Amino acid sequence: MHIGIVGLGKMGANMRDRLRTAGLTVTGYDRNPEVTDVAGTAELIAALPAPRLVWVMVPAGAITTSVIADLATKLSPGDLVIDGGNSRFTDDFTHEALLAEQGIHYVDAGVSGGIWGLTNGFGLMVGGSAEDVERAMPVFDALRPEGPREEGFVHAGKVGAGHYAKMVHNGIEYALMQAYAEGYELLEKRDDLIHDVPGIFTAWQRGTVVRSWLLELLVRALKDDPQLGDIEGYVEDSGEGRWTIEEAINNAVPVPAISASIFARFTSRQEDSPAMKAVAALRNQFGGHAIKKAD
Amino acid sequence: MHIGIVGLGKMGANMRDRLRTAGLTVTGYDRNPEVTDVAGTAELIAALPAPRLVWVMVPAGAITTSVIADLATKLSPGDLVIDGGNSRFTDDFTHEALLAEQGIHYVDAGVSGGIWGLTNGFGLMVGGSAEDVERAMPVFDALRPEGPREEGFVHAGKVGAGHYAKMVHNGIEYALMQAYAEGYELLEKRDDLIHDVPGIFTAWQRGTVVRSWLLELLVRALKDDPQLGDIEGYVEDSGEGRWTIEEAINNAVPVPAISASIFARFTSRQEDSPAMKAVAALRNQFGGHAIKKAD
Amino acid sequence: MHIGIVGLGKMGANMRDRLRTAGLTVTGYDRNPEVTDVAGTAELIAALPAPRLVWVMVPAGAITTSVIADLATKLSPGDLVIDGGNSRFTDDFTHEALLAEQGIHYVDAGVSGGIWGLTNGFGLMVGGSAEDVERAMPVFDALRPEGPREEGFVHAGKVGAGHYAKMVHNGIEYALMQAYAEGYELLEKRDDLIHDVPGIFTAWQRGTVVRSWLLELLVRALKDDPQLGDIEGYVEDSGEGRWTIEEAINNAVPVPAISASIFARFTSRQEDSPAMKAVAALRNQFGGHAIKKAD
Amino acid sequence: MHIGIVGLGKMGANMRDRLRTAGLTVTGYDRNPEVTDVAGTAELIAALPAPRLVWVMVPAGAITTSVIADLATKLSPGDLVIDGGNSRFTDDFTHEALLAEQGIHYVDAGVSGGIWGLTNGFGLMVGGSAEDVERAMPVFDALRPEGPREEGFVHAGKVGAGHYAKMVHNGIEYALMQAYAEGYELLEKRDDLIHDVPGIFTAWQRGTVVRSWLLELLVRALKDDPQLGDIEGYVEDSGEGRWTIEEAINNAVPVPAISASIFARFTSRQEDSPAMKAVAALRNQFGGHAIKKAD
Repeated sequence: MHIGIVGLGKMGANMRDRLRTAGLTVTGYDRNPEVTDVAGTAELIAALPAPRLVWVMVPAGAITTSVIADLATKLSPGDLVIDGGNSRFTDDFTHEALLAEQGIHYVDAGVSGGIWGLTNGFGLMVGGSAEDVERAMPVFDALRPEGPREEGFVHAGKVGAGHYAKMVHNGIEYALMQAYAEGYELLEKRDDLIHDVPGIFTAWQRGTVVRSWLLELLVRALKDDPQLGDIEGYVEDSGEGRWTIEEAINNAVPVPAISASIFARFTSRQEDSPAMKAVAALRNQFGGHAIKKAD
Repeated sequence: MHIGIVGLGKMGANMRDRLRTAGLTVTGYDRNPEVTDVAGTAELIAALPAPRLVWVMVPAGAITTSVIADLATKLSPGDLVIDGGNSRFTDDFTHEALLAEQGIHYVDAGVSGGIWGLTNGFGLMVGGSAEDVERAMPVFDALRPEGPREEGFVHAGKVGAGHYAKMVHNGIEYALMQAYAEGYELLEKRDDLIHDVPGIFTAWQRGTVVRSWLLELLVRALKDDPQLGDIEGYVEDSGEGRWTIEEAINNAVPVPAISASIFARFTSRQEDSPAMKAVAALRNQFGGHAIKKAD
Repeated sequence: MHIGIVGLGKMGANMRDRLRTAGLTVTGYDRNPEVTDVAGTAELIAALPAPRLVWVMVPAGAITTSVIADLATKLSPGDLVIDGGNSRFTDDFTHEALLAEQGIHYVDAGVSGGIWGLTNGFGLMVGGSAEDVERAMPVFDALRPEGPREEGFVHAGKVGAGHYAKMVHNGIEYALMQAYAEGYELLEKRDDLIHDVPGIFTAWQRGTVVRSWLLELLVRALKDDPQLGDIEGYVEDSGEGRWTIEEAINNAVPVPAISASIFARFTSRQEDSPAMKAVAALRNQFGGHAIKKAD
Repeated sequence: MHIGIVGLGKMGANMRDRLRTAGLTVTGYDRNPEVTDVAGTAELIAALPAPRLVWVMVPAGAITTSVIADLATKLSPGDLVIDGGNSRFTDDFTHEALLAEQGIHYVDAGVSGGIWGLTNGFGLMVGGSAEDVERAMPVFDALRPEGPREEGFVHAGKVGAGHYAKMVHNGIEYALMQAYAEGYELLEKRDDLIHDVPGIFTAWQRGTVVRSWLLELLVRALKDDPQLGDIEGYVEDSGEGRWTIEEAINNAVPVPAISASIFARFTSRQEDSPAMKAVAALRNQFGGHAIKKAD
């Protein structure tokens, strides 16, 4: 099989490597001349046998849409585009329609695994028609982790279902991280009683209910820096977490733990909290409580 | 009527003033010789006509218990002690039993109103027997705000009910403050669109659903300091808020808004968040996400 | 002054009454022949002196947009449209642009007060240019509550600021209601100790920190039905609450109390919780904990 | 090595089996004559070589305390008691003192693994002196899972540290379960888009960030009952979760995700929510919003 990839950043380049290792032929295009295999998308398309299969792996949002719009003008009816980026699932409906006008097929693929994917394989959640998903199966099989297909790959539903599932995956991920983090603080706070916080996390890796891959990563982090003394409690958040809350709101799904995780990140990035200034001001008004004067 | 007060701090002294203004005779005792009327509790008790009525207004916890234990040894059967401090309602059961052994009656009184109570009157929630509450009614009537008795005073239930109601009052208060504070931050954050945040709060004072006394206080605070520039977002919390959560847990009552208010205060006092350090460490492990190095 | 109103539902009709009572001339149009003053928007516009002032009071979303689009084709340059509905503030930008193409001015007005507005007046938050707001001031003065203008009216900022402020107002309102509701449940749950829950809320109306208009309404509700036995714990939510969360997410503002309020409403409407089914299933798997079988 | 166990319920009996399989000699006592090896604790103690090692595995709280009080009167100085039950860590201080009066040593052991422990081994977190912990190591090594000791066992700190760590473990566990459950509901709600919810969880088992043992259990549950149609969303909670919140409050640690998990369980068990009745009553008062009448 011979496929094209548009976008050879960290993820795209890793995927090209993994696909080639699996024996597939891959032609990749990137604006960066140092990593690209061809000069442009026209050359990429010319290099691929019809019906073509092009994997798009560029930043979500306007860039993905512009790449897909470009492909819509250059590909032929019957070709298949797969968006493997972190697109919002609502964008998939736009992309699908854009390509369908030219008779081009579309599959969306949510991809998990981060920097570990090259060696471990990428967890894949895809959306699209059964035929389109089947056609791309050699690519999915090459990218996904070793083991039974269904444990690292799912055809989740219609176009959009892949990115929706990935979005939910990330929402869950946020709350899992928050769970361990709250536990960490509860342990760390009682240093009068607890003498080996890293040892506790290490010991949870076998036999306990909370064992997980994230736990293993936390053990690794605590091995490097047992008191996390080198790390500031400042945490970014990405689109998927925010979209998860928006979809929860749209669908009237209560998500108190996931939203708590997002809000904790927002707070972590504030120098001072306007809301807490307001609470301090109120307490000062009604109770004569002392306030801390800002410098 | 002639009553005794033990404890003439800010609240106790204000109460003595308000009671005297209402025409009651008050003898107060405080360890501070500058404010006390008598030399000790023995002198206080000697000054009061039997059956006596002693209002205790000292810091909650061990100090209140020691004062009540002292009174238990000195008062006579048929006397009545009222604890008007911020005691935990579970302490009332202990205090009631301690006094009952000597035939001394007990009423607990939750008091709201803070520094405004001297002029506005104090909101009162009391617990005890109907007879004991009736007996102390002239005191309650003098302390409570003008207007119909039932709008500023309630006989809430058995001994403990007064402080329980006050505890819940404070739990609600925390969440009300948090509500306005979140709204404040939402307005303040969009200074591209919103040009008069203090004006918005001011305008909510008439005709809106959110009008309240706390809103008036926030308007006052914003008049003094329209951007709250002089105030740090650092907020203490007191026993009642914490007890509210504990009682919620004990009684399986979901209190997501009240607990959110407490947690926001905890966070406001942290230099850095251990939990968020753990999240940052995790993200760095699995995604290669950049972390902020602590200095 | 002579103004037009489009939309004479409960709110629009109340506003027409209040404006007329204040001495303004009002021509109203509604699709319902029983309440309308004129046959259509063309007749409405013909009846108004130029430059015209038209207040739109129809359901937010597509209906408001279609009314404004219709007015854009019929009004003249220099006329002024005010949207007093519950529009999302982002719609204001669209409406402003739509009208500006025809030289028509636009002001957005967030309105609070519900069914009480007719007698108490409506709390008003408006966005637009200083000139446009000034021009409509007789209308705002007639609609707003008695008392100082700034306590029931605010020019909050640019177009959109009025509805943004109203959205935040409603977000706060949700959390205030949740605060009292959590307190109610904490009191109600301890009927072994607390004998007069309605009396407690009644007593909070004077002298306490938690006094507010919502508290008065709760007292009223508890007077009618002291145990709320006739009411099901089923609560709808409207656009403003959801938009508040979305804006919080968009602007990285932590809103744990407001979101808790929304999630509690979502949960209140569920026959059974899919999430809790999943938790029950998990507990059953790892602990052999008994589960409740669905019927 | 020869040890005694008091308490041969599900957990205690499994532990006896696992210890015997590992080659240790175990004498167990239980009130249930069908499972006990001896007639009473006196017989148990007589059967053990001095210095003795007795593992207590009975329900936490009063029962554990009474067993330990009984052992304190019967064991000899230098003997060692290990409490492997789900005791609150604050009870450990009492138990330690009770035994220390008789010169008896004490170690607390938090145990994870549930019904899977017999085959997988039990995750162990212990507190006590280095000497006492070392002395009991053959027992810990027999009970803990295969693999490096530090991945299934930790000497967490002083007496109490084992149960504290276990308490935090369970708090984390609650939030992890809530995280997956919220994700489940987000997927399940969009059945227009998502056609294979169990397949998605199955696919997350390899290569994704959210892979864990709990995920595997959820996959297993969904295999048995893909729509969880047989399970009611009714979830109990146990002491550890509640204690976690109390300790968080005591130590000013914000735990929004863990508390959200507990509150969700509380709500899951309510026929109707008093708090939501109050919100419905309020909405009805101020907005004339329709309410659902209770039957």
